[in-house]
Amino acid sequence: MQSSEFINRISESETLAAARIARELKAQGKDVIALNIGEPDFNTPDSIKDAAKKAIDDNYSKYPPVNGYLALREAISKKFKRDNNLSYSPDQIVVSTGAKHSIVNVVLSIVNPGDEVVLFSPFWVSYKAMVELAGGTAVEVYANVENDYKINANQLASAINEKTKLVIFSSPCNPTGSVYTQEELAQLAQVMAKHKDLIVISDEIYEHINFGDQHVSIGTFPVLKDRVVTVNGISKSFAMTGYRIGYLGAPSWIAQACSKLQGQFTSGANGIAQMAAVAAMEMDPKELAYMKDAFVRRRDFVIAEIQKMKNIKVNTPQGAFYVFPDVSELFGKTTASGKSINSANDFCDILLEEQYVSVVTGAAFGAPNCFRISYACSDAELKEAMQRMSKFVEGIS
Amino acid sequence: MQSSEFINRISESETLAAARIARELKAQGKDVIALNIGEPDFNTPDSIKDAAKKAIDDNYSKYPPVNGYLALREAISKKFKRDNNLSYSPDQIVVSTGAKHSIVNVVLSIVNPGDEVVLFSPFWVSYKAMVELAGGTAVEVYANVENDYKINANQLASAINEKTKLVIFSSPCNPTGSVYTQEELAQLAQVMAKHKDLIVISDEIYEHINFGDQHVSIGTFPVLKDRVVTVNGISKSFAMTGYRIGYLGAPSWIAQACSKLQGQFTSGANGIAQMAAVAAMEMDPKELAYMKDAFVRRRDFVIAEIQKMKNIKVNTPQGAFYVFPDVSELFGKTTASGKSINSANDFCDILLEEQYVSVVTGAAFGAPNCFRISYACSDAELKEAMQRMSKFVEGIS
Repeated sequence: MQSSEFINRISESETLAAARIARELKAQGKDVIALNIGEPDFNTPDSIKDAAKKAIDDNYSKYPPVNGYLALREAISKKFKRDNNLSYSPDQIVVSTGAKHSIVNVVLSIVNPGDEVVLFSPFWVSYKAMVELAGGTAVEVYANVENDYKINANQLASAINEKTKLVIFSSPCNPTGSVYTQEELAQLAQVMAKHKDLIVISDEIYEHINFGDQHVSIGTFPVLKDRVVTVNGISKSFAMTGYRIGYLGAPSWIAQACSKLQGQFTSGANGIAQMAAVAAMEMDPKELAYMKDAFVRRRDFVIAEIQKMKNIKVNTPQGAFYVFPDVSELFGKTTASGKSINSANDFCDILLEEQYVSVVTGAAFGAPNCFRISYACSDAELKEAMQRMSKFVEGIS
Repeated sequence: MQSSEFINRISESETLAAARIARELKAQGKDVIALNIGEPDFNTPDSIKDAAKKAIDDNYSKYPPVNGYLALREAISKKFKRDNNLSYSPDQIVVSTGAKHSIVNVVLSIVNPGDEVVLFSPFWVSYKAMVELAGGTAVEVYANVENDYKINANQLASAINEKTKLVIFSSPCNPTGSVYTQEELAQLAQVMAKHKDLIVISDEIYEHINFGDQHVSIGTFPVLKDRVVTVNGISKSFAMTGYRIGYLGAPSWIAQACSKLQGQFTSGANGIAQMAAVAAMEMDPKELAYMKDAFVRRRDFVIAEIQKMKNIKVNTPQGAFYVFPDVSELFGKTTASGKSINSANDFCDILLEEQYVSVVTGAAFGAPNCFRISYACSDAELKEAMQRMSKFVEGIS
């Protein structure tokens, strides 16, 4: 008895695995600081919690429509227009059990075995797994710390060919925190537009966690009309990861395919969380400024600490809640305890083992020279974690 | 641009499609009575709603573990022992976004293209879609109204061969309401046990809606040790369909595969609903008797009404909240409005069109002579629907 080829194509999500290992060590009584998972340490805003409790009282306990309550899809349609200048009608919107679910629905709906999917690397860990699940081939276009982890139009042009079905990227980016500007996106959109059958998934889950210019959606460029799937959700911006609500706006044929797949997989997403999401959509994004303020303060702290560490390169990301240092200059060196560091995996494993600081290796994101720190934790934890990391790095020679 | 082969393998869920069409007609102002969907018309018990609200207050808003909170998996483990005499440790339990999600996780985790999967027919609509999604072949073993819609051991024996990877069935059964007895299950288990590599999915989501003998889990037969995946959830028994919590107990290798797949698809299920599910698991099943009493009264009413209708055959199901009449004796006849009835599809379509009563064709469940009535609606609606149906059938000649 053995598992299917389908399931054997994928591995356990490496970010979730890191979180699981940290949780297990904590359960054993170890003083682990977890900088491994992508979720705000804030609580959900009270007004949204109240909306969720009202939905319970109002008995939103029946099967919701597969693609989501109309009230929520209307609220999302308005939000897309208000915040992003995107026009998706409620029929073009599908609500799912998290943005991860939204993206895998699209990937499975359009990618055939043998198709190529271009990923901007470093990429979010699950993109590649989803492409593999569909039997497609991920084509990674690399950017590194020197170019602020952003690819350019020429790189993209040389990665696309007649087999390319899909491009997936996130801005603000998980794992790097990089944010593409209007001008950069315009150049990338021109390249994508030349390939008439190409679909683009724009993952904008970190939209509101942006420390620089106004967020730009690639779906606003007319050259890509009817070709862009915009994915978003409430998890990151509203501190609601556990509510599991993501959504997408898409060309109608893709929205219909996603809805069909979801109808055979999970049906509609949790109804109470959907009504909470309506409240989130209707909230003024300015009310979330306190989270952004905290994130930018922590980012500055982490960057300053890492810049003091020798042989580690780091840039200054403009969004999300991650920094993505490059540790390749440590490869071939030895820790104070006499262990060799030959990869970012080694760096992360030994850091956890000796200092109980849990981060995620860049290998999970297509960047084996780097590692990801999530600074979505308390200032005190962050301070302690940076002290431990600094001590660890100082010992490497 | 076109959708993938994967998505083209499946259709829209026919029960959800029937619900969607009824909802659309209602929105147009038509007086539709919906007997099409499998969900209790009761509200969630107050004690469970309180647990959900407490979870919101207690900020269960972070990512839950992929396989579910330990507290919930422990409560499920105890429930399996208490109600079903099944021994699954918390590690063998995976919590998902509905029992549908639990089942599709298992099917995709073990079925390869070309594998055969035996379904007891009439079967729940999504089983076949899931097998097709995995690229497998569904082998249907038929039972009809004369044998109470239950297959026997000889039929099962002749359907299994060396290509058979999986058997899926539900008892109490959706769509027929049939309940297999201890003796019947023992005979089926003997047949399954002879094929050493065969896995069995026992869908027990209607466990508590059983009007006859004690519910029996096929996983209790020692001949099937380490081969049975028992699927259950809170949707039907606790009137919590919209909470989207299903779960399974499985051999460890299957639980691990499901967890891995889920980690790349949706992550863990909604955290608030999980805490509500803990309260449901800890509730005394006797507290749900009021729902069962209502269901048995309505079943008796529907059966009595249908027995008065000419040329319709019906049995007396022992569980769930469905009756599954056979209308094949009406084929070739004509409605009062002059339309021909040549299939259960025709019967259902014209009944909706002329009398605004929405039921689901048996074709969706592998039984093209039959249709499914869900009597999980108010007594008043049921009375009105039966009057309309009776009038419709009387006009057929």
